Amino acid sequence: MRELDIPDQELSALADETLNLAKNYWSRLDERAAYPATSGEETARLFSRAWAETGRGRGILADFQQIADHSRPSGARFFGYVVGSGEPVGALGEWLAAVLNQNVTSWRSAPAATTIERTVVGWLADAVGCPGFIGSLCGGGSAANLMALTMAREAKLPANETGASPCMMYASEQAHMSIPKAIALLGIGRQNLRLIPVDEGFRMRTDALKAAIAEDHRAGRTPIAIVATLGTVATGAIDPLREIADVARMEALWLHVDGAYGALAALAVPDQFQGLASADSLSLDAHKWLYQPIDCGCLLHRDAAIAREAFSNSGDYVRILNQNPEEAFAFFEESMELSRRFRALKLWMSLQYHGRRTFREAIARDLRHAQMLAEAIAAQPELELLAPVTLSVVCFRHRTKDNEAILRRLVARGRVYLSNATLKGQFALRACFVNHRTTAEDVRTIVDEVIAAATELNR
Amino acid sequence: MRELDIPDQELSALADETLNLAKNYWSRLDERAAYPATSGEETARLFSRAWAETGRGRGILADFQQIADHSRPSGARFFGYVVGSGEPVGALGEWLAAVLNQNVTSWRSAPAATTIERTVVGWLADAVGCPGFIGSLCGGGSAANLMALTMAREAKLPANETGASPCMMYASEQAHMSIPKAIALLGIGRQNLRLIPVDEGFRMRTDALKAAIAEDHRAGRTPIAIVATLGTVATGAIDPLREIADVARMEALWLHVDGAYGALAALAVPDQFQGLASADSLSLDAHKWLYQPIDCGCLLHRDAAIAREAFSNSGDYVRILNQNPEEAFAFFEESMELSRRFRALKLWMSLQYHGRRTFREAIARDLRHAQMLAEAIAAQPELELLAPVTLSVVCFRHRTKDNEAILRRLVARGRVYLSNATLKGQFALRACFVNHRTTAEDVRTIVDEVIAAATELNR
Repeated sequence: MRELDIPDQELSALADETLNLAKNYWSRLDERAAYPATSGEETARLFSRAWAETGRGRGILADFQQIADHSRPSGARFFGYVVGSGEPVGALGEWLAAVLNQNVTSWRSAPAATTIERTVVGWLADAVGCPGFIGSLCGGGSAANLMALTMAREAKLPANETGASPCMMYASEQAHMSIPKAIALLGIGRQNLRLIPVDEGFRMRTDALKAAIAEDHRAGRTPIAIVATLGTVATGAIDPLREIADVARMEALWLHVDGAYGALAALAVPDQFQGLASADSLSLDAHKWLYQPIDCGCLLHRDAAIAREAFSNSGDYVRILNQNPEEAFAFFEESMELSRRFRALKLWMSLQYHGRRTFREAIARDLRHAQMLAEAIAAQPELELLAPVTLSVVCFRHRTKDNEAILRRLVARGRVYLSNATLKGQFALRACFVNHRTTAEDVRTIVDEVIAAATELNR
Repeated sequence: MRELDIPDQELSALADETLNLAKNYWSRLDERAAYPATSGEETARLFSRAWAETGRGRGILADFQQIADHSRPSGARFFGYVVGSGEPVGALGEWLAAVLNQNVTSWRSAPAATTIERTVVGWLADAVGCPGFIGSLCGGGSAANLMALTMAREAKLPANETGASPCMMYASEQAHMSIPKAIALLGIGRQNLRLIPVDEGFRMRTDALKAAIAEDHRAGRTPIAIVATLGTVATGAIDPLREIADVARMEALWLHVDGAYGALAALAVPDQFQGLASADSLSLDAHKWLYQPIDCGCLLHRDAAIAREAFSNSGDYVRILNQNPEEAFAFFEESMELSRRFRALKLWMSLQYHGRRTFREAIARDLRHAQMLAEAIAAQPELELLAPVTLSVVCFRHRTKDNEAILRRLVARGRVYLSNATLKGQFALRACFVNHRTTAEDVRTIVDEVIAAATELNR
């Protein structure tokens, strides 16, 4: 008897029940409140327990309902942060990936999975107008940005062997928090990240960027990299990529583009993303605008040699015996992780199930939804927009009420979920559309709910 | 019409077919060759294609058979690297995690998932004799080791704000490649990692460790951290933890324990892991010795304040409005990632389905299997052991034949899968048991197959 073995019949029954849970959850997803009625005390009471000596067997599935009831659903009326809606074919792909249990370190360890990952990375590169770029999938934008800046550092001022030397990086004030986090982690020091001011549209000011670089040169400091953001998290602003690319080229700096949120909109509105192929590296998240289940980040770049300089530390125990180039390929030589799961399978399945056109149309619709909401806000005298709507983020506020209180009330009402941002010191309500389940009616609900929450504050 | 929407009936049929693929794969797993007959040309031919405009619909499932046929199965006779066998309840957990699509950044974003992750991290801490330790799940040992050394650096010689200062870290010559990789990434420089010699059992020599630290002090360098390895990848050696902990305490150095492979054996043989609770941080991989599907790493540590010093860079757009301590908890303030998937659900389901005793017994059996193999090798005059068998790794060689050629032949025969290591300049065949599917008969097959492969070389 093998201890963990489950007889085929029992496993089959367990899988059938799991399937039913998933089907029921999906089919009734939009009946759920946009945010669950729960509390820290309640989740602690339900989900804090010891690991028992004796197994519970199939009884564990009874937990699912409670877990779902105390989770934020990826339903049609979730507009918080930048979180994709969890396309079901992608979820089935995640399951098969867990069944196959490939360790996608290298072709040798996972032949089909390695080739499939390289293929879907190529699809993503094509989708954003960067054919020929290579790279790998990763957990998300934070990992992708960290890998990109590791490559930038190693390309411009090698640190892996001797340690980091003082140097400067540049990003806009609206850059994602993963940028300073990466720079801290890399031993460069957050104080050596210049946060460049933005214009009225929350885009990096190229004049200020040039001035900062010039000042650093005069002071004897060493600029090495610029981060342009395509789709800031707060407002969806797109930094002026062509101008920034010119600066990077003239100054011989690494150009990283953080397109975790925005880059995949290039599928639907390629004109807004001209010049993307001038980047040295580019982050994007398929768990945002390709609606995949979390996690599905991607780092694209141009140069396998620099990636190997940055990441190769291979030990002998993973020495590749085969020198055929396809068979000798190892992700761990060109990226951060060693053990890696088969993230590519969900993309392989979901993207081919629906086809490229369908994703392009879904993204276009998210963009339209943002414009619809902006128009509805403009038509509602109590509300005002706080930022231009470039992609699918809409930041706004109630003109006279406490917007923080409105947000708490709105979330408690449970019909829509928004998050928040601070723009020029003002608390903003924030809706973001990266949701294939959202309908025009769901969009209309947002203004109604904000007004209703504001009205409740009077009582 | 929502572009990516799939009618309930179609989604149900698709899910049913996926379920059948998974059931068939599991039930016939051990009929598969231990390694697929494939080549780089063949996977490229099968899995390189463009992303088509038009969707393939349910036809995508037809790919599964080919993907499986060109993948290394997690079957009973896989003994390569250190890769867990992919427990099926854990795989069902991965599926439900993808269905729920929680973004486990914080309690606010994922109430149940956040509490469940904190609970299962507590289970893992208890399992390895470190009750009270806290932490988070991550992709694997590489991420956990990187986070640990980030905390070490920030605790001993803060770098996040101003950049990394010269400092020294220590690990044995047998430490995992993720240690120098992390030190390179952190801007400390690989040359500032002292690789301490090992004894005849491949354990770090504490006398050499003390001498290296003393020499660095004399030279005016700044030691900050020691990495002890519990279960080296090459031979499964366990560094002398108590002695190393004494050195760390006397020198006021951070003690990180890389237990990615070995730590969870503390469930079965706690006596070998005395003193683990003296670590400042501890990496372990539940996708190794708890047999979970990849990925499921964990970093345990003692001090939330140091974790926040190391990792907090939070932007305003994720500002937590609620100040209740459970509800204000955010993983991104205490670990590397922002978007994080619901890795804890597979542990929640698999560990409770089977119960703690079952896992303890399965690990004990892996340890017995390694001893069985060592005995079989000792009884076979053509073979010899190359290292003591402490945990579940067995390194050995054929006394007279080309062992690299034997390994290639063995893998091509497809009955068992071994990997390799280099020990004192010798090429070693290497079997590792972290496989709940393996039977005693499978273990016996290893020596038979090595002899058969060696015999084939004569022809």
